[in-house]
Amino acid sequence: MSDETPKKNIILEHGEKFFGYYPQLLIVVGVRYCGKVNFIPVAWKTCLSYTPFLYGVSIGKNRFTHSLMQQSSSFSVNFLNYEHTHLVRSLGRSSGAEIDKEKEFNINFTTGEKTDAPIMTLAYCTFECLKQEAVLFGDHTLFVGKVVTIEIKENVMKEDKTLNTDIVSPILYLGIDNFITIDNKSFLSLKKLPLHYKVKKKR
Amino acid sequence: MSDETPKKNIILEHGEKFFGYYPQLLIVVGVRYCGKVNFIPVAWKTCLSYTPFLYGVSIGKNRFTHSLMQQSSSFSVNFLNYEHTHLVRSLGRSSGAEIDKEKEFNINFTTGEKTDAPIMTLAYCTFECLKQEAVLFGDHTLFVGKVVTIEIKENVMKEDKTLNTDIVSPILYLGIDNFITIDNKSFLSLKKLPLHYKVKKKR
Repeated sequence: MSDETPKKNIILEHGEKFFGYYPQLLIVVGVRYCGKVNFIPVAWKTCLSYTPFLYGVSIGKNRFTHSLMQQSSSFSVNFLNYEHTHLVRSLGRSSGAEIDKEKEFNINFTTGEKTDAPIMTLAYCTFECLKQEAVLFGDHTLFVGKVVTIEIKENVMKEDKTLNTDIVSPILYLGIDNFITIDNKSFLSLKKLPLHYKVKKKR
Repeated sequence: MSDETPKKNIILEHGEKFFGYYPQLLIVVGVRYCGKVNFIPVAWKTCLSYTPFLYGVSIGKNRFTHSLMQQSSSFSVNFLNYEHTHLVRSLGRSSGAEIDKEKEFNINFTTGEKTDAPIMTLAYCTFECLKQEAVLFGDHTLFVGKVVTIEIKENVMKEDKTLNTDIVSPILYLGIDNFITIDNKSFLSLKKLPLHYKVKKKR
């Protein structure tokens, strides 16, 4: 793609959707309330703070999971490998209001160390979160959790606490049930390049 | 990676950082206030609502950009191709308090259609955003913008408004100045599989 490729402006009609901000890593949120367990894939999510360690997941206010999340005091954030894409798609294209997803899709899970959030056995990493805030933005609510436990498969992390992409190929979402993963051959480390600060800063 | 790989729990010390929630698409936020223009790469960001179309970017409260964002009424979200990773890393490892990044790193930009946010010429897509809210979560502020214009290179989008990964290789961040991009050969479309809803729903 040339840097001189012409640009155009897109004007969205009211309610029209645009997916050009993807790919985004897809995680699966797990929640339990009054014995009902549910799982939903979420691409709209982000880390929000280092200290305290906060993670936010954005869920449509008409989703069944939304009401569970409003009532529960905790949730889990499950990171899955690309081989589980079909499962994740099924979790997204079904509703916990109609079925028990964990039975329908044979999902094994344990219970968190510090909360009753369901921890997916398949996940290579899971954040167990205590819900701290729920903030409505437009048609979705951002549920903000404090990460109280990180459960992770051995060898998934490097010593510097970055992901070992020799082992993990995470699920990236492109919109409209299209998925993709990373190209490990493209890995590029620039951490040894000089910094551009004039005043010396901690890295 | 076998699903039977044993798991362990990680307990973070106070202030210790963990990067296992990456990779995340890296965007560059552009902001202008009182003639000062600045650009900063952000991996902590997400779409927040379809209608209205809201996009949030999380910026550390000690960053120079944070004060510009607090004062300005608009910002831009710039999506760049993987070939520009060195530039993006330089924008992250420098401070607008010390240098004019646009001069130091030769960044060409135009001015937004509806705001004075700087639009990077290099970007394959840019969201021009009107700031709507700024919410502090821990040590970062989430700046929420309403997307008022989408400026995009021709051929970058498919007809269904998803990204054309034959043309675009976005920058994904892994933490600590490590980067990676997508493997276009792994593209998987599951949109023709049956849904699992019992009650018929709109897709």
